[in-house]
Amino acid sequence: MKTSHRSLAFLISLVPLLSLRAADPLPSWNDTKPKQAIVSFVAKVTKPGSPDFVPVPERIAVFDNDGTLWCEQPLYVQLQFAMDRVKALAPEHPEWKREQPFKKLFAAPGDEMVPVTEQELMQIVMASHAGMTTTEFDQIVRDWLATARHPKTGRLYTEMVYQPMLELLAYLRTHGFQTHIASGGGIEFMRPWTERVYGIPPEQVIGSSGKLKYGLREGKPVLLKLPEINFVDDKAGKPVGIQLHIGRRPIAAFGNSDGDFEMLEWTASAPGSGFGLIVHHDDATREYAYDRDSQIGRLDRALAAAPEHGWVVVSMKEDWKTIFPADD
Amino acid sequence: MKTSHRSLAFLISLVPLLSLRAADPLPSWNDTKPKQAIVSFVAKVTKPGSPDFVPVPERIAVFDNDGTLWCEQPLYVQLQFAMDRVKALAPEHPEWKREQPFKKLFAAPGDEMVPVTEQELMQIVMASHAGMTTTEFDQIVRDWLATARHPKTGRLYTEMVYQPMLELLAYLRTHGFQTHIASGGGIEFMRPWTERVYGIPPEQVIGSSGKLKYGLREGKPVLLKLPEINFVDDKAGKPVGIQLHIGRRPIAAFGNSDGDFEMLEWTASAPGSGFGLIVHHDDATREYAYDRDSQIGRLDRALAAAPEHGWVVVSMKEDWKTIFPADD
Repeated sequence: MKTSHRSLAFLISLVPLLSLRAADPLPSWNDTKPKQAIVSFVAKVTKPGSPDFVPVPERIAVFDNDGTLWCEQPLYVQLQFAMDRVKALAPEHPEWKREQPFKKLFAAPGDEMVPVTEQELMQIVMASHAGMTTTEFDQIVRDWLATARHPKTGRLYTEMVYQPMLELLAYLRTHGFQTHIASGGGIEFMRPWTERVYGIPPEQVIGSSGKLKYGLREGKPVLLKLPEINFVDDKAGKPVGIQLHIGRRPIAAFGNSDGDFEMLEWTASAPGSGFGLIVHHDDATREYAYDRDSQIGRLDRALAAAPEHGWVVVSMKEDWKTIFPADD
Repeated sequence: MKTSHRSLAFLISLVPLLSLRAADPLPSWNDTKPKQAIVSFVAKVTKPGSPDFVPVPERIAVFDNDGTLWCEQPLYVQLQFAMDRVKALAPEHPEWKREQPFKKLFAAPGDEMVPVTEQELMQIVMASHAGMTTTEFDQIVRDWLATARHPKTGRLYTEMVYQPMLELLAYLRTHGFQTHIASGGGIEFMRPWTERVYGIPPEQVIGSSGKLKYGLREGKPVLLKLPEINFVDDKAGKPVGIQLHIGRRPIAAFGNSDGDFEMLEWTASAPGSGFGLIVHHDDATREYAYDRDSQIGRLDRALAAAPEHGWVVVSMKEDWKTIFPADD
């Protein structure tokens, strides 16, 4: 009887150990330096009494979106949306058949990339992102994402998110972190789906935005999206957007391009324990390989500065077991 | 034995009832219509299966600050701060002795109100709120609030908050609500103290803001406050600020002046169950009495529209047992 009790106690004593092993919170990460750096950072800021301890309300992490949480190649998803939207709106705008940049968009065969100037790009974005209410735009984005597919994989865009980053978001939240997005992409383009896909609610999404105008339409209050830029949340705009929205300096930042340089700098030199991480796209087989010379997601200055700043660089090829979530 | 068991069971059955009674979550509210309306609104949106049920992530409540959560008479606290700040900075600005509006500020005896134009007011605000980093400004606000006192009561301004509203904030949060501030006041002026005083963290504060500029100072990243307006979070700006920050339409709004009209309209005509409440300052004995003719916190249009919109009007005199928290 006594022995059997002891054996039982011994077995029970193993349970926490076994369940810890069973529940690796980052199973899609190889056991290489980046994973070790993440786990050790989280351990030190969450350990009560540690000199690096950070109270829960101050555990703010910020994530770029395009190229950091989901695929940005061969084209930013939002740009594909804008082009599809312009095509869908064409019947209501016969003048576009004669006007650039719309004329050349329609002339291009299939999904071919059309070269446009920055000003022309802005015209395309404004034509597709303004002139409706915020509620209408929300529905347009949902409808588009329900059917639009990535040209290479044929997957829905919301399935082109990085599995290791989904695990990282959940892991940080389990340890009391708030996980905010700070993206150059449109704030109203992300909010309709970030909660479902990333577990990030609309109030934790920071992005570029157009001006809004409040008023009544047929007696009902609406917010109308105007064809005017309100804020560009990129480069030096990222720390500004973070301050305006969060009002607290994050202690961890995750990016993948030079557009994230200032966000990484602002965060990872925070008093105490700042953590910076760069996702390096070096896996042409499983995703895409690009950095210094890429038009989209150019990574040059931030990669060069990483060692000096102590930013962790993730090789998608070496450090990630899987890239995208498994098919259902 | 059987009887005694029954008696025990009967006594135990009373426990939930007794503890409910003991723990009135709104003890500073009289048992009048506003309290009943609040309790009944919260009951219906939190009852699973009810047609008015609102899931936790969508339980967003927005609160004006000046005159709704803390006292705004005889002067907006932030304006008193700006004037004190200009006086403190005067030695570094000898030119102010000859320039308006500074000259007339210095000439006024004691705490007397000095009439200024809107443009002069802006000069005072810019002189006191720009030209330093966000971190420096945060400390300036903390230091000022630690000693500045209300001219009538001699209390610290952070003790001039409304006890019934503190209870309401806590009550809503207990029921899964997020409680955000949406104030015409400066976002950076509120954030240093709203968490301590209201339990509202910086990321849940929406307000007016100046432009910020990111850069390095002596090699360290800083956000510099520029003397330029970024956003005015008042009147039709409130629904805009709410959309930019939260991205979700609130289901409850609390205000006290015509500056809150659009926020109340946007919120309390939300699809489903919008709730709007106006604090009416009608208690000259315990606080101040003002509405239609007041320069500060003018309440005219919103009061007239309240019955038609179904907004609850709180009489501070009739509906609140106490106004300010008890002295320690």
